[in-house]
Amino acid sequence: MCNQCGDANNLHQAPATPELGRRKLLQVAGTTLAAAPLLGAWLPANAQAQTSEASTLGQSPFAVQAYGAKSTGGRIEPLHIQRRALGPNDVLLDVLYAGICHSDVHTVRGDWGAPALPCVPGHEIVGRVIAVGSAVTKFRVGDVGGVGCMVDSCGTCENCLADREQICLNRTTFTYNAPDKVSGGTTFGGYSDKIVVTEKFVIRIPPGMDLASTAPILCAGITTFSPIRHWRVTPGQSVAVLGLGGLGHMAVKLAVAQRAEVTVFTTTPSKIADAKRLGAREAVLWNDTAAFKRLANRFDLMISTVPYAFEVQPFMEVLKLDSTFVNVGLGEAKGISSMAMAFGRKSLAGSMIGGIAETQEVIDHCFARNIRPDIELIRPDQINAAFDRVVGKDVRYRFVIDFASTKNNAA
Amino acid sequence: MCNQCGDANNLHQAPATPELGRRKLLQVAGTTLAAAPLLGAWLPANAQAQTSEASTLGQSPFAVQAYGAKSTGGRIEPLHIQRRALGPNDVLLDVLYAGICHSDVHTVRGDWGAPALPCVPGHEIVGRVIAVGSAVTKFRVGDVGGVGCMVDSCGTCENCLADREQICLNRTTFTYNAPDKVSGGTTFGGYSDKIVVTEKFVIRIPPGMDLASTAPILCAGITTFSPIRHWRVTPGQSVAVLGLGGLGHMAVKLAVAQRAEVTVFTTTPSKIADAKRLGAREAVLWNDTAAFKRLANRFDLMISTVPYAFEVQPFMEVLKLDSTFVNVGLGEAKGISSMAMAFGRKSLAGSMIGGIAETQEVIDHCFARNIRPDIELIRPDQINAAFDRVVGKDVRYRFVIDFASTKNNAA
Repeated sequence: MCNQCGDANNLHQAPATPELGRRKLLQVAGTTLAAAPLLGAWLPANAQAQTSEASTLGQSPFAVQAYGAKSTGGRIEPLHIQRRALGPNDVLLDVLYAGICHSDVHTVRGDWGAPALPCVPGHEIVGRVIAVGSAVTKFRVGDVGGVGCMVDSCGTCENCLADREQICLNRTTFTYNAPDKVSGGTTFGGYSDKIVVTEKFVIRIPPGMDLASTAPILCAGITTFSPIRHWRVTPGQSVAVLGLGGLGHMAVKLAVAQRAEVTVFTTTPSKIADAKRLGAREAVLWNDTAAFKRLANRFDLMISTVPYAFEVQPFMEVLKLDSTFVNVGLGEAKGISSMAMAFGRKSLAGSMIGGIAETQEVIDHCFARNIRPDIELIRPDQINAAFDRVVGKDVRYRFVIDFASTKNNAA
Repeated sequence: MCNQCGDANNLHQAPATPELGRRKLLQVAGTTLAAAPLLGAWLPANAQAQTSEASTLGQSPFAVQAYGAKSTGGRIEPLHIQRRALGPNDVLLDVLYAGICHSDVHTVRGDWGAPALPCVPGHEIVGRVIAVGSAVTKFRVGDVGGVGCMVDSCGTCENCLADREQICLNRTTFTYNAPDKVSGGTTFGGYSDKIVVTEKFVIRIPPGMDLASTAPILCAGITTFSPIRHWRVTPGQSVAVLGLGGLGHMAVKLAVAQRAEVTVFTTTPSKIADAKRLGAREAVLWNDTAAFKRLANRFDLMISTVPYAFEVQPFMEVLKLDSTFVNVGLGEAKGISSMAMAFGRKSLAGSMIGGIAETQEVIDHCFARNIRPDIELIRPDQINAAFDRVVGKDVRYRFVIDFASTKNNAA
């Protein structure tokens, strides 16, 4: 879709002549790279090769290759979208990797309502910084940045000031399928060649981090890390994880790293062994009623990553008193009993990703402890097959679209 | 019903000759009253008059006058029940006042399933101690004791050891309509002339406390006090109370005493003024959509005392981030949205009365601050009319059955 005219079939190309006014706002690759010897060996050897492209790219709105759906539930196909010219606080990322989250499938397929079209998903994005706005201080060209589920917020409301930009009282701008307050139109996500994001919403990725497996931390990681932090999981506590998919396997890794004793509840017998490999002490099938009975009043925290509606009350029964069942998978909680919850003062909570500071924290935490999502790299032309496999629970445990291998600047 | 033979129509009378073995276990009124001069003026002047009755009563199972329903949904009528002989740790209370809780109505009318019959409700009981078992140390004859919603628990499970006897892992014995592990049969509540309870489950009522208005604290008070304590309401916080009945009006008084800013949500226009009289800063009708909009993200804690199923999501919207909607009224929470709860990391929790230590705490707290439920005293023959008025929301704010005025030992 063209963001200027709203025509889904046409795409205004970037003007051939860059606007001079905008050029002044940019610290483009050529300028910053004058300091390249100071950046050390991690700066890609071919950074110089980017200069000619990056020195002009972003000075005006520009077209980029992307992958998206042109209809609700439609196939993901190659298309072009428009990215905005860099503002003074913007960072231009050359996308290297983009994770496939189950919510991408929900959105494209209209499970949560019809998306704006075309719909270009992707909110687990790792990319190389190839240009920065004139006021940018957090990044230099050559750095690696990460973008998660949001790209902007008001920055002034009570929630933003509390580092909770994901629930900005003036509406968070989510990374795709959301109203774009800067450019108008709708945001487009990371299934694309390049993305422009204001620096505050770009996470610093430490040099030396494995980039492909970093992508899923930006949604699956922060989503499961945040409740572990908020409900203060301590060593020796019992934590249950419901569902062993992209989010679930990160919940296991993060809780195990916290030295909690982790139990996985899964509907898939073949995942029992996997759960233990990931560090869980036990894995239980949902239909194992004897196990539910044995585990009554066991858990200090339960993290549900299940994206479908399901009966919650049996899980409430295995919570300890005063404890919380937190639903990060956003599946609707069916069949809860007020009376049963009152016994034991149990809570059902929601939680959604985390703020920017907490997202930076989980990246640094995973780097320091070498916690890596288990990923399967795919090519962009395999996205539709990957969507089907996500729905069929045939992923161990996150698909990551590899844009890097087609580029010269991959880490 | 006879607890010995299970015959609902017959009642075995206490044996005419007290068992000598049991007599040794009892410190009956006559013995303790030898020390009467030391007890000071609060000891009822006519205590000596009790001696002849109390010196034998409780040595064997005995019949007492009670008020209960003989069929599910049936009228409350006079009947006789059997109380057990006092064990060494038991206290015999001469019932002075018994509050009428909405749950009494639910139970008798079968809203939560058919009750055991006959059903003698009452779990807000204040009575004079007229005999104590030989091992009792917490009470002396002449003291006033209170009994709330439970009369026994195992005392050894994890929850009991954490002062949470109301959720004993080996099943709490509730004050009425529950299996009676000591005597067999079913427990009978406070709509009765006398009750025998193990001393641990009898709350000490300070001398000088207004006894009639103390009764509702034993359920309505502790039920609303416990979440205020657990979720640590601090001065200046915003607390919402849903429903202004027996529980609701206590929630308002207790939160106001905590110097919280209280908002009441009520469906009854005539209660708006009452809410303010009770100390609320504001009162809002449930259909006032403009108020809901204005109050978005306002509350640090919401306490729902509503006993019927209702739509919870609009109330979730007026919770602050990270905050809790606690349902003590046990009405089922309808229409919650996992997605909406995730925004703002909101929690839906249950809570049910409190443990014995916490019940003692709320009694002492209310005495120290002179917090008294608003009550309407009724005679036992007015219980059915009172039930109807409870359902019709025509009570300001708790009916208390006055047994004291028919007795000589009233405070």
